[in-house]
Amino acid sequence: MERALKPTSRTPSEITRPLAEFASTLTLDRVPDDVAYIAKQCILDWLGVTLAGAKEPLTEMLLDYVQAEGAGDQATLFGLNARGSVSQAALVNGAAGHALDYDDVLRIMRGHPTAPVAPSVLALGERDRKSGADALTAFIAGIETQARVGAYMGESHYMTGWHQTATVGSFGAAAASARLLGLDTDTTATALGIAGTQAAGLKAMFGTMCKPLHAGKAAANGVMAAELAKRGFTSRMDVLECAQGFGATQSSTIAPEAALEDLGSLFWMPNLLFKYHAACYGTHAGIECARAIRKHPAFDAAKIEKVDINTAERTMGMCNILNPQTGLEVKFSHRFTAALALAGEETGSLHVYSEDMASRPDLVDLRDKISVQGHVNYGPNITDITVHQSDGAVIRESRDMAIPNKDVDVQWDKLETKFRALANPLIGKEKTDKVVAIVRDLEKQKDLAPLAAACAKSG
Amino acid sequence: MERALKPTSRTPSEITRPLAEFASTLTLDRVPDDVAYIAKQCILDWLGVTLAGAKEPLTEMLLDYVQAEGAGDQATLFGLNARGSVSQAALVNGAAGHALDYDDVLRIMRGHPTAPVAPSVLALGERDRKSGADALTAFIAGIETQARVGAYMGESHYMTGWHQTATVGSFGAAAASARLLGLDTDTTATALGIAGTQAAGLKAMFGTMCKPLHAGKAAANGVMAAELAKRGFTSRMDVLECAQGFGATQSSTIAPEAALEDLGSLFWMPNLLFKYHAACYGTHAGIECARAIRKHPAFDAAKIEKVDINTAERTMGMCNILNPQTGLEVKFSHRFTAALALAGEETGSLHVYSEDMASRPDLVDLRDKISVQGHVNYGPNITDITVHQSDGAVIRESRDMAIPNKDVDVQWDKLETKFRALANPLIGKEKTDKVVAIVRDLEKQKDLAPLAAACAKSG
Repeated sequence: MERALKPTSRTPSEITRPLAEFASTLTLDRVPDDVAYIAKQCILDWLGVTLAGAKEPLTEMLLDYVQAEGAGDQATLFGLNARGSVSQAALVNGAAGHALDYDDVLRIMRGHPTAPVAPSVLALGERDRKSGADALTAFIAGIETQARVGAYMGESHYMTGWHQTATVGSFGAAAASARLLGLDTDTTATALGIAGTQAAGLKAMFGTMCKPLHAGKAAANGVMAAELAKRGFTSRMDVLECAQGFGATQSSTIAPEAALEDLGSLFWMPNLLFKYHAACYGTHAGIECARAIRKHPAFDAAKIEKVDINTAERTMGMCNILNPQTGLEVKFSHRFTAALALAGEETGSLHVYSEDMASRPDLVDLRDKISVQGHVNYGPNITDITVHQSDGAVIRESRDMAIPNKDVDVQWDKLETKFRALANPLIGKEKTDKVVAIVRDLEKQKDLAPLAAACAKSG
Repeated sequence: MERALKPTSRTPSEITRPLAEFASTLTLDRVPDDVAYIAKQCILDWLGVTLAGAKEPLTEMLLDYVQAEGAGDQATLFGLNARGSVSQAALVNGAAGHALDYDDVLRIMRGHPTAPVAPSVLALGERDRKSGADALTAFIAGIETQARVGAYMGESHYMTGWHQTATVGSFGAAAASARLLGLDTDTTATALGIAGTQAAGLKAMFGTMCKPLHAGKAAANGVMAAELAKRGFTSRMDVLECAQGFGATQSSTIAPEAALEDLGSLFWMPNLLFKYHAACYGTHAGIECARAIRKHPAFDAAKIEKVDINTAERTMGMCNILNPQTGLEVKFSHRFTAALALAGEETGSLHVYSEDMASRPDLVDLRDKISVQGHVNYGPNITDITVHQSDGAVIRESRDMAIPNKDVDVQWDKLETKFRALANPLIGKEKTDKVVAIVRDLEKQKDLAPLAAACAKSG
């Protein structure tokens, strides 16, 4: 009898509306401190990769397109010495932020969480002169909503071929924009509907400029969804779960319970992973192993005879280019990224991923001493490396990069270092200092204009 | 042996590129006369429904959104006394054109062919001062390309829940825009890739403002795809057929042969169907039956005792609202639309679809004499109606609306009548005459400015 008194566990029938309620009612006082802290780290990190991405050809093409359309004057195009309308800024900054593939990742979302959300929030927030606290709240609402949309879709959405930064990201951008515009729950659910029916992006585009474009489109679609909902535009309020809706058309593994698990008390932000090396995430565990080995007292680069990399089988098709010839190929090479790290090169800098480096004799020599073995029983971000030296020393290190940094202060320091390395050459030390200081106390900023101004020009 | 000498029939491995080659090399001299004539009918008809759609709340909301973003000054927003950038015009005009669901349909595309293509062509063409012949060529390239993308996807794409005016329409808009910008085959294939990875739109949105939004988004996405490809933006050139591409992710019934069948000589334009009644297409055969019955010498409305409608079973879930209360519900009611037609009301006018009409006693009385029976063996657009009168007369008519009008001159006349009925109250007789005259000789127009100017204001 006792068991019968317990509430029965039932599959929830509503998904979109509870998520909309969460997003539309979130306030900073309900957000754990570490979540808000990590959110600021996301924004700092994203600003760095966006400034660096502003120099990429794809960003220049988007800027040219936007300016040919007639650029608006509402929000800053970061690092481009230009401005645009909110949707133009969301598009251009969104694509720039994902141009280098150097931005954060979140497993439950199966995508890059900040890429679609930050550009929406910062563009809308700049136009509407929102406070730092408002922007931070909206950003967190967006990240957490899209984490749960990712959970809802399960693994089949990604496996079928959808790029979740694009598709699931549209929901995050819409939720964040809706929160920043102060929309109520029904209107936010409507915004999610308008976003869901625009959500698109194929993984088949990886390796082309369309991959970063996806992040920009998700951001722009999300902003428009919220702006239209605000004006009374109608849509379904149950786009995720309705018949032939987003879930039914694009997933065979929907997980309603996972989508709503401890909604309001469980935050996914602390599971977010940052990139400290400008290469494919699959190479990061190996790079970290190599860096640790380099610090070992017995290590001597000149005496390396043989290096064994053991890694997850699932990375072999993704980042095991044996003899990379271009900078882009280096980013997808277990052997070469490990060689760079063993040689003491700064894998967090963009310049090491170049044609020149790919053919530098000492690195090629080191590369050729490295062999890679994939293992099906290794987790997706586990790698171990063993270095055999001519003096008989054998040094071994292992890393699992699927585990987020537990010390968020250490994480801030690492991200600040990364940000400074990316931003300093582009906006100079004074503005770099300013951005770091502003973002560190983002919740205390009266408005976002000084932050945007500091990131406006690339010098 | 003789059979072995024949070329073997093989499944084509390339789809996107042949379509891009067709679109990028199409010239008017390779287009059959009736195809060009029907294309002009599409444009005239679309201008009429777009002008009428400009008055709809959803169009006003989009206009307000675009103006809040900062409206550009490149292209006319039809009927709105306003202008926008090319992408804004594609978005707003695209949505307005589908707002009333009164635009043309094409079975092989499983969607509304002109809705995503015309707004792209007219906005780009106005900005770039293209000739009428250029616009017509681009329009035909877009319609034919998207017809073949629809053929490629087969029926599963629609059945799963995709709104093909949105998804397949993105390809049509991109192909037309690419042709108008003069892109070569590779660049056009790239534009199709950029369009394909943006293509989205769920049928679950039917009944909300998102349905017309889909057409506007497809138009804007297609324009942007071509504009970016022109600037060297990269994408896949095989988005339709590649692994995890548009076909693989969104169809289980891809049909490569159908997509390329007699490419260059077979045009799908003549299969296009127009709407002459501002109601769901499923009611049109019944309306035509009722109109024919009304002309019968023995017909006497006062003596109607009983009316039997026999129609396709598949329309029963779509347009068989028995006792409609609103104008929108009237559009989806076999009984009420037949009652309107039997009573001699003008089902081509928008005003008959209103709450007042839905409750007018004589029409309600007539409605209640009508019964509807669905039949699984009826084609999707077949209906027959039998009227039984108190004087013993029994009048029966049958229509199949899936058959396009064979006499294209008669079709022009019917569409001109429809256009005048829609446009006259909005832009006045003088401009209405002007638009009819311009479109009739579209291929002779030096530039599109006079056409756009005539459709600019709604008076």
